[in-house]
Amino acid sequence: MVNVAVNGVGTIGKRVAEAVKKQEDMTLYCISDVQATGQLRSILSEDGSLHGTPLYGSTEDGAQNMADEGMHVDGVLEDVIDEIDVVIDCTPPGIDQKNKENLYEPNDVKAVFQGGAPDEIAEVKFNADANYEEARGEDFVKVVSCNTTSLSRTLSAVDESFGIDKVTANLVRRGGDIPQDSRGPINSTIPVTEVPSHHGPDVQAVMPELDITTLAVKVPVTYGHVHMVTAELEKETSEEDVKQAFRNQPRVNLVSAGEGYDSTGKIHEKMRDIGRKRSDMQEAGVWEETVSVDEERVHWIHMVHQEAIVVPENVDAIRSMFEMEEKQDSIEMTSSSMGIE
Amino acid sequence: MVNVAVNGVGTIGKRVAEAVKKQEDMTLYCISDVQATGQLRSILSEDGSLHGTPLYGSTEDGAQNMADEGMHVDGVLEDVIDEIDVVIDCTPPGIDQKNKENLYEPNDVKAVFQGGAPDEIAEVKFNADANYEEARGEDFVKVVSCNTTSLSRTLSAVDESFGIDKVTANLVRRGGDIPQDSRGPINSTIPVTEVPSHHGPDVQAVMPELDITTLAVKVPVTYGHVHMVTAELEKETSEEDVKQAFRNQPRVNLVSAGEGYDSTGKIHEKMRDIGRKRSDMQEAGVWEETVSVDEERVHWIHMVHQEAIVVPENVDAIRSMFEMEEKQDSIEMTSSSMGIE
Amino acid sequence: MVNVAVNGVGTIGKRVAEAVKKQEDMTLYCISDVQATGQLRSILSEDGSLHGTPLYGSTEDGAQNMADEGMHVDGVLEDVIDEIDVVIDCTPPGIDQKNKENLYEPNDVKAVFQGGAPDEIAEVKFNADANYEEARGEDFVKVVSCNTTSLSRTLSAVDESFGIDKVTANLVRRGGDIPQDSRGPINSTIPVTEVPSHHGPDVQAVMPELDITTLAVKVPVTYGHVHMVTAELEKETSEEDVKQAFRNQPRVNLVSAGEGYDSTGKIHEKMRDIGRKRSDMQEAGVWEETVSVDEERVHWIHMVHQEAIVVPENVDAIRSMFEMEEKQDSIEMTSSSMGIE
Amino acid sequence: MVNVAVNGVGTIGKRVAEAVKKQEDMTLYCISDVQATGQLRSILSEDGSLHGTPLYGSTEDGAQNMADEGMHVDGVLEDVIDEIDVVIDCTPPGIDQKNKENLYEPNDVKAVFQGGAPDEIAEVKFNADANYEEARGEDFVKVVSCNTTSLSRTLSAVDESFGIDKVTANLVRRGGDIPQDSRGPINSTIPVTEVPSHHGPDVQAVMPELDITTLAVKVPVTYGHVHMVTAELEKETSEEDVKQAFRNQPRVNLVSAGEGYDSTGKIHEKMRDIGRKRSDMQEAGVWEETVSVDEERVHWIHMVHQEAIVVPENVDAIRSMFEMEEKQDSIEMTSSSMGIE
Repeated sequence: MVNVAVNGVGTIGKRVAEAVKKQEDMTLYCISDVQATGQLRSILSEDGSLHGTPLYGSTEDGAQNMADEGMHVDGVLEDVIDEIDVVIDCTPPGIDQKNKENLYEPNDVKAVFQGGAPDEIAEVKFNADANYEEARGEDFVKVVSCNTTSLSRTLSAVDESFGIDKVTANLVRRGGDIPQDSRGPINSTIPVTEVPSHHGPDVQAVMPELDITTLAVKVPVTYGHVHMVTAELEKETSEEDVKQAFRNQPRVNLVSAGEGYDSTGKIHEKMRDIGRKRSDMQEAGVWEETVSVDEERVHWIHMVHQEAIVVPENVDAIRSMFEMEEKQDSIEMTSSSMGIE
Repeated sequence: MVNVAVNGVGTIGKRVAEAVKKQEDMTLYCISDVQATGQLRSILSEDGSLHGTPLYGSTEDGAQNMADEGMHVDGVLEDVIDEIDVVIDCTPPGIDQKNKENLYEPNDVKAVFQGGAPDEIAEVKFNADANYEEARGEDFVKVVSCNTTSLSRTLSAVDESFGIDKVTANLVRRGGDIPQDSRGPINSTIPVTEVPSHHGPDVQAVMPELDITTLAVKVPVTYGHVHMVTAELEKETSEEDVKQAFRNQPRVNLVSAGEGYDSTGKIHEKMRDIGRKRSDMQEAGVWEETVSVDEERVHWIHMVHQEAIVVPENVDAIRSMFEMEEKQDSIEMTSSSMGIE
Repeated sequence: MVNVAVNGVGTIGKRVAEAVKKQEDMTLYCISDVQATGQLRSILSEDGSLHGTPLYGSTEDGAQNMADEGMHVDGVLEDVIDEIDVVIDCTPPGIDQKNKENLYEPNDVKAVFQGGAPDEIAEVKFNADANYEEARGEDFVKVVSCNTTSLSRTLSAVDESFGIDKVTANLVRRGGDIPQDSRGPINSTIPVTEVPSHHGPDVQAVMPELDITTLAVKVPVTYGHVHMVTAELEKETSEEDVKQAFRNQPRVNLVSAGEGYDSTGKIHEKMRDIGRKRSDMQEAGVWEETVSVDEERVHWIHMVHQEAIVVPENVDAIRSMFEMEEKQDSIEMTSSSMGIE
Repeated sequence: MVNVAVNGVGTIGKRVAEAVKKQEDMTLYCISDVQATGQLRSILSEDGSLHGTPLYGSTEDGAQNMADEGMHVDGVLEDVIDEIDVVIDCTPPGIDQKNKENLYEPNDVKAVFQGGAPDEIAEVKFNADANYEEARGEDFVKVVSCNTTSLSRTLSAVDESFGIDKVTANLVRRGGDIPQDSRGPINSTIPVTEVPSHHGPDVQAVMPELDITTLAVKVPVTYGHVHMVTAELEKETSEEDVKQAFRNQPRVNLVSAGEGYDSTGKIHEKMRDIGRKRSDMQEAGVWEETVSVDEERVHWIHMVHQEAIVVPENVDAIRSMFEMEEKQDSIEMTSSSMGIE
């Protein structure tokens, strides 16, 4: 059993912690944070633990802060670091790097970092579908961001089946998450003026051979980025074959606008209706009707639930780093424990 | 055991159907609808039933429509109407009245209608907290709307404890639900130009003695109406006493902005975090910090999750109509089966 | 001729500067700022002036900043302060107080401050309709905020005609202005948890006898706050009489939902169609259909264009401070110069 | 002098009518409509005319409707059709086709149609920059839609300078216009499931040689579509050369995010600040910083003000149809009369 700590239980961390608890080959040793936020209060049981897993301070000060706010804090992460095999670090960008230098490296504990962390934090960038093997035995791994994860999943599916010459992907990003009521815009579209955007190179971190260019804008929605993708293939194919490639990808869902799922809001409602916790969608969702082939060119539009898609990747990263399972087995174990179809 | 059918499984109907299935003293005999929407597909199991409860057509044509779209339809509601004790009618306004005349009345089957139905459809308007007793033995009952339900709950709590002379409540209504992507406004506030608005008389349907006036506007949000309430009391009180009255009300929650729940988005996130299906909030949520007393006047601001709040009321209405349980017992049975605190 | 400087040409300052230029009894001596924002660039002519009025730095550093960004800066405000009779200070809250202490008081120059300034900055709070006379001869005056201005205008109209016993006003505030793309919320309603909100006491600063209580929320729109108002009168009246009182108020417009102006968006469009610069609405807009009288109680809903409504008040404040014109004359001069009906 | 009628004075029609009035070589003979909307009321002077141009009914019934609502209606369009040389038809899709068959063709009057009209309505599709010459002497011309117009302008600029091999353009469309408060979505992104979308073929109607593919989504904003464009060129170029090509295009503006115009909201504010009526932007706006060249590939992001961009094209179409001016002269006359830089 691998002992896991989740450091920083915000949007990603709280989901990852709950996912780790569902794995039979891992133990969630503790969670840690520095502030008594609303979401921290909401995930804890009445006894102040995460359904049995104790809460620690990420730092001495953090432990004090939370105790002052009435939280039941069991100690400080550093004090139990020897009991832990791997930390999933979901702290804000900047803090993660300091944690690596001051806590994880000196104590010889492995760590998984998130998409917002600096690139230098880990040599291996990770997406389970695209490069599971590369994290094998590594001490530090960075799971790529939500946008990158969805691109890696869909593009690796197409690339494996047909070979991709070149991709253009244009991203329509959400402005903020559901609880982030101080983020905008209210009524603007904001171009990312860095062109091409960083998302292309981010995908190349897990698919180094891929020729990809991305542009992005930000819009006033809270659930889901949407990507418009055009890929030039090495050989002709058919719409049906591309759809089949997506169907074969374990974490890509084909969703049908014709069956009533014709917007991000309707897909959000689907996740609510099928009973996903937090209405989360861990899969990338490709609108079936948008898959369109023109000789050697294929287009599609997919959506990404920005809060949820990287969660299973964090679990898989651990299995690869500790050489616990082969790729397909790990993906299946994680997905089935989380109810991903 | 009371045999229940839910006719119309849209926003309200699908929730009510799932709630009825959780009651030990009721059987969900069937659900019925006329169209294969995305949400209908999402709630059904692979065998086409609602986890064992068969799908019927509300009409012959409806059954045909759904069968044509590949749904497994077991028959037409009318054919099994004799097996049913009560229909919870969640069909669109206009259809409900025809259903009463053509199907429920001729077949001597009781029915519960929703807030959008015409007032004449049932003599008794129902809110469990405010007038549970009045539905006793009735054949037709109308559960009041989401706005009215939240006002009835909070106002009956205050009225019972302190007596209310007069209330002004101003409503800030959501523009559309999460999946309703064709509703606006995008960037407008829309006044309800009927002043006072219908919500005041609606509350009086369950609290006939109450002197209440309401005004309303509509704004671009999808989760939650918000009400600003000012009540003049018969006697002086204190903020703490008013809060306590709310705490004593089983379906009113005090939420603390200071603890991190300072917007509808943050409360939505709380419902996601504590694992409510569909992120539903069946309680009215009063922001603790907004309860303010000035001599004999009390103010507060509360939120209402428009999709969910009336669901437990539908269940309680049945118990009152069939004289199955006393008020407090029914409320407790329903709430505890649904995980309402 | 009174020599006016406008210090700080953001949302309010740029409008006030252009309004002052339209007055025949005032000269806009200069405008001043500290940063080369997009809106500063947009209002300037090709020669870098505001159609002839030079740009100064509010400070040495500010002058340097703007010069570095390619703006034509004529000097620093302090160097010409002796030429100026009154500064309209539209700098951010905090800066205004320092400007008063370090620049205006030591140099014996009068100043008008905005609604965001601290209350102590000026003994007299100002709204032309409510208390024009009180600024007479004053050195420092604070024009009340946009919400307060609209309440003062409508309430003074009703109070003068019928006498008000008590008012409850509930405010639905916009989240951010059109260019403020980093402000939210995107999809939340945010209660102002200070209950009653500060808007009531703010109105009392210009209508000290008024018994008023206000509550407020914030929503995702960019053009216009909306207020729902209930006033208890000293005597019975009729809807027609109340409408007439509003019609008599020079800066209150009755707008008709029935004629097609049934939302803030439609009123915004009206301002665009009638050719108002920046689509500005300097009047408070009362929806005619919402004026409703119930014995001695009157209700109405009005909107406030948050960027524009205080602009004419700034001009009138100057005339009162320099004892240039009587109230009605000043209001008429200002309004007619700005095209206010 | 060409006698012009504008039939249908909604979003586009009211703007076109006002633009025609500014031309020295055209007379606006009348405007016509069928309903007394808010925007119709707003554009008319007190005497019920459009600053001297009379209002007619588009039909007998329409004239009656408007008269019943208190509008001053001078007659019915058909009765004066012989006085008119060309009708600019801005009626809703479907009506335009009937108008052509029943009114314009039988009376030998020329007509200009809008982007929403069926393709068969006119053989020549028109964009002044791309194919001014083709409308020469034509009886019926269709001005292409707002999205198509902006693509035609930017792409023709690049194509003329460098030659385009292939283009991918992804469109992020606004959900509704400022006054359209019943349109959504509130919090969804909606994919256009027709892939490629119709915008590509629409551009080819005016640039028949162009190999272009487009995808589109719809988002909750009211001012401006945004396009992300990638073009493969016939020869290498530099960012500076591409920017220069845009600068040379009379109806394309380079806007600088770095100077403070980094969102559609900030550009909207610029149009307000420089005093454009209705805050209109008739130019396509290319964000300077997004122009990016990678060997023979160029990317950029531009915005389109959906209400305004086609207005000057309607005026130019008339000049071409009546062979009044050469392309550059017409473009310059129209632009300078409208204050387009």
